[in-house]
Amino acid sequence: MPAVQRRPSRPPIAILTDFGYRDHYAGVMRGVIAAIAPEARVIDLTHGVPSQSVVAGALALGQSWRYFPQETIFLAVVDPGVGTRRRAIAIDTRAGVRLVGPDNGLLSVAADEAGFRRAVELSSERFRLSGVSATFHGRDIFAPAAAHLWLGTPLRSFGPECRAIEKVSLGAPVVRGKRLTGSVIYVDGFGNLVTNIDRASLSGFQASFPACRLLVTIKNGPQIRIVNTYGDAPVGAPLAAFGSFELLEIAVRNGSAADVFGAREGASVTVRVSTPPRYLRKKRHNG
Amino acid sequence: MPAVQRRPSRPPIAILTDFGYRDHYAGVMRGVIAAIAPEARVIDLTHGVPSQSVVAGALALGQSWRYFPQETIFLAVVDPGVGTRRRAIAIDTRAGVRLVGPDNGLLSVAADEAGFRRAVELSSERFRLSGVSATFHGRDIFAPAAAHLWLGTPLRSFGPECRAIEKVSLGAPVVRGKRLTGSVIYVDGFGNLVTNIDRASLSGFQASFPACRLLVTIKNGPQIRIVNTYGDAPVGAPLAAFGSFELLEIAVRNGSAADVFGAREGASVTVRVSTPPRYLRKKRHNG
Amino acid sequence: MPAVQRRPSRPPIAILTDFGYRDHYAGVMRGVIAAIAPEARVIDLTHGVPSQSVVAGALALGQSWRYFPQETIFLAVVDPGVGTRRRAIAIDTRAGVRLVGPDNGLLSVAADEAGFRRAVELSSERFRLSGVSATFHGRDIFAPAAAHLWLGTPLRSFGPECRAIEKVSLGAPVVRGKRLTGSVIYVDGFGNLVTNIDRASLSGFQASFPACRLLVTIKNGPQIRIVNTYGDAPVGAPLAAFGSFELLEIAVRNGSAADVFGAREGASVTVRVSTPPRYLRKKRHNG
Repeated sequence: MPAVQRRPSRPPIAILTDFGYRDHYAGVMRGVIAAIAPEARVIDLTHGVPSQSVVAGALALGQSWRYFPQETIFLAVVDPGVGTRRRAIAIDTRAGVRLVGPDNGLLSVAADEAGFRRAVELSSERFRLSGVSATFHGRDIFAPAAAHLWLGTPLRSFGPECRAIEKVSLGAPVVRGKRLTGSVIYVDGFGNLVTNIDRASLSGFQASFPACRLLVTIKNGPQIRIVNTYGDAPVGAPLAAFGSFELLEIAVRNGSAADVFGAREGASVTVRVSTPPRYLRKKRHNG
Repeated sequence: MPAVQRRPSRPPIAILTDFGYRDHYAGVMRGVIAAIAPEARVIDLTHGVPSQSVVAGALALGQSWRYFPQETIFLAVVDPGVGTRRRAIAIDTRAGVRLVGPDNGLLSVAADEAGFRRAVELSSERFRLSGVSATFHGRDIFAPAAAHLWLGTPLRSFGPECRAIEKVSLGAPVVRGKRLTGSVIYVDGFGNLVTNIDRASLSGFQASFPACRLLVTIKNGPQIRIVNTYGDAPVGAPLAAFGSFELLEIAVRNGSAADVFGAREGASVTVRVSTPPRYLRKKRHNG
Repeated sequence: MPAVQRRPSRPPIAILTDFGYRDHYAGVMRGVIAAIAPEARVIDLTHGVPSQSVVAGALALGQSWRYFPQETIFLAVVDPGVGTRRRAIAIDTRAGVRLVGPDNGLLSVAADEAGFRRAVELSSERFRLSGVSATFHGRDIFAPAAAHLWLGTPLRSFGPECRAIEKVSLGAPVVRGKRLTGSVIYVDGFGNLVTNIDRASLSGFQASFPACRLLVTIKNGPQIRIVNTYGDAPVGAPLAAFGSFELLEIAVRNGSAADVFGAREGASVTVRVSTPPRYLRKKRHNG
């Protein structure tokens, strides 16, 4: 960030946590930032990550960073290991965004996609609040680090470089014969079921069965068509489409797929090659 | 907006959605705005509009706009028809506020009250993100439009003018003899039941029955007095009053009317002329 | 606040309410502030205070103020008495923060800790919206007062000085023999049970029983060890620790103590001197 850049267009700090909206915890982090870097603009990305769900937080961060200004500082805290020996880290990426949070995999999806460059451990006392608590590192370590980064403190000043960072695994869809099997990795607030099936996997699978239609099933549910958008299914009907995550989602038009199918994170999702009905097959044999 | 106006006092962008607080969707919209118009101030009006409830969103927007700075840009997304042929629009008003969102009635209450001047369809590719998704126009079309409007892009640059916009209907209270009947159009987070009965309707009705007291009933509930404020009823007692919507509300002092009466949007509400008890009527005959 | 101070580093306005996130109420307060003081930075401390819980709001404010910039204006609205004769007040503190809200105890914990200096009643019509409603003083009285304070209007201009302000009582832990008894005063969104037992009370109690271990019980639950941090207990196990409130909390590692113990605000919490098992006691007698 060049020193001569006009202050008001400096990038924002975007915060993602699982602190929820009931308590003052997320607000206190914003207070800490305001006390250290009064001019920093702060955007609440979300504080509604399901409690202690590192995977959901990592995914949300991975889905979000590219829409923010290039040098945005992401401050992320989903931290079931607070008070244990897990490290606090900050990461620099080739895309320009920086990431601050616990080293438990939370930052890893965004770091991979934005191009991991370097990570340091946030060990310097200088950039922490004095009297760090054992239970609220968001306030005492992570928010101060993000604010000092915003002020221009170079990454290397925060502590020693880390060789590697922890990763979360989202799994990958598996092809076996006429089936591609993936799983639900995120359930959003509308009840849409986001799977780990990306466009590349699906089109590779489709390529093996050209001219065949693919159908999706979840649990014991019906066979679901893959459409272009939510609006392509009748109201109340299930559908599968590539949503804003650029991953295959199962949705119910104007409804909640999570409720309709009783499904949540981890549920298995299968894409099958549609077998034409017998009379159609006969026709083809004869044709 | 004159070009010489000092930057820091430019009006804010206020966002209203039904995206909820669990996901990163609303935060991503703020990221898009920050990337296009880094100096824009953004206010989250609410992201808690009941899922896909265009009427609730329209009402909330209609209740809010007048309290914001004159040239505020309202960016509203409650969009069950995303991905269908419903138009994306921006509206200019005589009061000065501008409105951006889907053309499904969501903007219509505020547009009516602020004085509809002109609407355009957001069809120009120039002011959208590249690669518009079929499912997240808040991110790909509406947030960029609001940001470009804030930067000073004139309304006509976004696309062709629209002749008319979609409206939502809140219904109107109906008078039949000694009864005025309306309905609940909004249930707020405290459980207050906001009706479509405005002051003008009620005083017109009252004028036909001077010196009579009016009593309100909802479903099979008790007769409820119309008072000046919540504090005029005992704790736990129901009351009816003109609340912050300037519409008749049924509330329970320090409680939830929605819970007490098991009522929600659409419930019928009746205002009756109170019949004095028999002995009082007799007295009057004799007096 | 000196007149020459650079604008961008003026302190923020931090808002705490029980308005929740469903409605536009909190957003409208931000609109009012933007209309009066367009350059003020606003931080949503939380709008999730349990509905009408003045004690929870007072505690959250008491826990938060010290992490914000020195001259932050806290605008707090948890106001079951809106429309009654309770006063609207603003408070100046020795620490520098200012507090605006209803005089029902909500501001009292922060005022005590920050050093109460002076309070005035917000009675001047000049600094209210015209046509004050009976039900939404957050919008009509409190937000305008905070915005005018931020602009530099001196406290005394708002109305007459108040001799005393209302207080909330959090109770104090009581020692009887080998027992210290306190109570749960706050349940946070993770289900952690925050008690009114502070470090001073606990170490005073411990001093009477040197070398004895203390154990905590809540309701009919098991005896819980006091540890340094959440990570010191196995996953799923209960623990007691001084958390971010600097008060003894009962938590369940990676779980919800509120759910596990079925406990909420008001639940009694007992700290007992651990009695060594019989064979250990015998040993000592013999030793």
